[in-house]
Order: sequence, then structure tokens, then C-alpha cells
Amino acid sequence: AAIDTALSDGPLKGRHILVTSGPTHEPIDPVRYIANRSSGAQGTAIAGALRDLGATVTFVTGPATVAPPAGVRVVKVETAREMLDAVQTALPVEAAIFAAAVADWRVANAAERKMKKDGTGAPPALEFAENPDILATVSKMGEGRPGLVVGFAAETHDVARFAADKRARKGCDWIVANDVSPATGIMGGTENAVTIIDETGAESWDRMGKQEVARRLAARIAESLGAAGA
Amino acid sequence: AAIDTALSDGPLKGRHILVTSGPTHEPIDPVRYIANRSSGAQGTAIAGALRDLGATVTFVTGPATVAPPAGVRVVKVETAREMLDAVQTALPVEAAIFAAAVADWRVANAAERKMKKDGTGAPPALEFAENPDILATVSKMGEGRPGLVVGFAAETHDVARFAADKRARKGCDWIVANDVSPATGIMGGTENAVTIIDETGAESWDRMGKQEVARRLAARIAESLGAAGA
Repeated sequence: AAIDTALSDGPLKGRHILVTSGPTHEPIDPVRYIANRSSGAQGTAIAGALRDLGATVTFVTGPATVAPPAGVRVVKVETAREMLDAVQTALPVEAAIFAAAVADWRVANAAERKMKKDGTGAPPALEFAENPDILATVSKMGEGRPGLVVGFAAETHDVARFAADKRARKGCDWIVANDVSPATGIMGGTENAVTIIDETGAESWDRMGKQEVARRLAARIAESLGAAGA
Repeated sequence: AAIDTALSDGPLKGRHILVTSGPTHEPIDPVRYIANRSSGAQGTAIAGALRDLGATVTFVTGPATVAPPAGVRVVKVETAREMLDAVQTALPVEAAIFAAAVADWRVANAAERKMKKDGTGAPPALEFAENPDILATVSKMGEGRPGLVVGFAAETHDVARFAADKRARKGCDWIVANDVSPATGIMGGTENAVTIIDETGAESWDRMGKQEVARRLAARIAESLGAAGA
């Protein structure tokens, strides 16, 4: 078919790429959880754009509000720890794009029964534990590290500075940074304004649709992986 | 039109009924929040069933995953405090059905900027405050109390006992209790198995679709409000 031909002719033909997307949910008890406002729209668009260039895509997604793209291998997870497991199971890959908004913390003492008010007005004693750092874990792998590791930084202020710090700290190759201040309407919205930080510096793209951000990012990934190995 | 005629002929014609529905979201910072697994399906079905009996319905909904019913006045809120404000604004009503899964606690020190890991592995210091109790607040009103106040109890164990305690403690007229243990599939699902607790005791209904629960509950409400005042 025409679509099959198009896929098999793409510059990413034969390349296996991992994309994570969406929020994670961290349980407090059987009915309550901690969430974040990620819709999964940008990660979904990136997975679709990589598929369109011929890549074999494994798409590890938290409970997103947008549906996963067609034509990719979908692995659904809820928590950060489940996402790390799914990522490690998907390896080896030639590139890993970590677009998910992973919770930094989980509730260490999540309850098996619904927590109830005890009548004293005292709040629940929630204890937090730091979640595994999926981006740093994969970036710092020795043998088997993906050739290209791309992280995302969602900031509400000093975006470029925090993103450059994050790239150095995590050990990834690129950071795609954006401003998720509520006033921008980016988190949960249809547009994005990103800055790409790599080893050569920072490159800011004008605000555009998340689909267009995805197409440009996929083309940049294809260029980076090069035609040599295809 | 036929529909208008049907509505105007219903047993709840001219009655103003308030229904709350859905979860509330309690912010932690600009991108993170505490949520619960309520889909809003049962509250939405109840509002639709009351409308079908001719009631004028004000529908105060948190960020639910199901769309609000047509033909009702919809007020969208996010937090428990916003929901209480919307409820108080909607009064007076002849009956108030509190089907929303309101968060018991909010984060007292929600941050204006996204919270960041500080590198020490130390968790964020979240402080909790108890949210206003919407059901108790309305149940214990003197002048202006709705003639019928119905609360919901979502429990994961000892459902009937906790629900009867809750009815006494809150001062409402009926409690609609259900078991939201994950194994039941009720929270976020299409069926429900409820027990109605009123001043005469407990009445358990077989497991049935949430639409059917809504129709039976709306009929019971119409019976309770009586035809005398219509």
C-alpha cells in the first residue's frame, strides 16, 4: 500500500526509537493520587512524526488525555516506577525521547484502604520518596546507552538556564525546554514554544503547533542519527 | 415541542435541584495536583434523570472525564473551595444531591512556581489543610436548608456501617453508599451497586448500570418531594 511504501522509504527505516509521554499518577490510597497537567499531546505528536519517517516506535505512556498514535507499539503505565520498568524492557533502542512529565516524588506510605478523616482535623501523614530518575538512568548507562538521548524540561521561570543545568546534570544529549507557566497555555494546549539545548548551545523555535514542533524535532533526530547506518 | 411538553409534564416540574459531580483537583504547584478517580458518571446520570422528570437542575462539576448532561445549568469548578462557593451561590434549592468526590484535604502551602528537586533527595514539605465540608455545611443550615439533602459515601470496606455513621455525623437526609474498592470496578466504571441509608434504615439495590441507579434515585427523590407542592 501507499502508506507502507512511504514508511519503508523514510530516513528512519529500520531504526528503533523509544518515546515516553503523558503524566504519571502516583497513588495516595485506592481512590486518590497525585497527578500533573501533562496531556501527552507533545509526546504523542513526536511518536507519530518519528513513525512517519519510518522509525519503529515503542511508545511508553502514562494516563494521558490524548489517544496514542496508530502504528506504534504502545505500553501503558501509571507510575514513574512502572514507566522505568517499561523503558528498560524496551531497550536497546537507537534513540530515546523522554517527553513524559514524570512525577519527581511518590507517596511512600500509600494506603491500601481509603484514608479517612479522623475527626481531629489533623491532616494525613503523607511521606514522600523520590522516584527513580528515568532520564538520568538511561543517559548514564555504559554499554547499551541509546546513541541519542533527549530529555524534556518543563519550567515556569528561567527556562533556558534551568534546562542547560538539567542537560549537564542528567547526562543526556539534548534537552527540549518549554515554559509551562499557566499564562502560556502550553501545558494541555495545542501549541508549544521550545528551546533545544545541545552540546553546541541553545536554539529557540518560534511558538507553533505541537504537530509542527514534532515534525521539526523528528527531522532533527533523523539528521542526528545520520543516513550512514540505514 | 414534544420534549418541552414532556419536561413540563414531569413530576419535578418547577422544582430546582442542585447536583454536584466529579472529582476536585487540589493544586500542589502550577503543574501538579492531587486528584481522585471519580469520572463524574454517576452524578452526570443523576442530573440527567432529574432533568427528565422536569426538574430545573444546577450541575456543579469538578474536572470530570464524562461530559455534563444537556439541558441543565452547568457550573465548572476545580477545587473543593470553589465547589462550596458555587453550591452556596446556587441556593435556594428544594433538593441538593452531593455526588461529587470532594477532596478532604488541600495543600496549604501550594507553590506559585513549579517545585524542584533540591539535589538532597529530600521530599517537598507539603502541608495539608482540611477542606470545607460541603455536605455538612448545607445539611446543618438553619433557614434556607434544602428540603432534601443527599450525600454520597465512597468506601473501600464496611460500607453500610461507615455510611450510617456518616449520615448521622453530617446531618443529611439520605446517604447513597457504594464500594469503590478497585476490585469492584465501580469507580470509573459503568455500573454501580448502592445502598440507600435514610431515617428508616438501609436499602440495598442490586448492581446495575449507573443510568438505572440514576433513574431509580430520581424517582425516589420525586416521591420524597411529593406532588403536593407542584
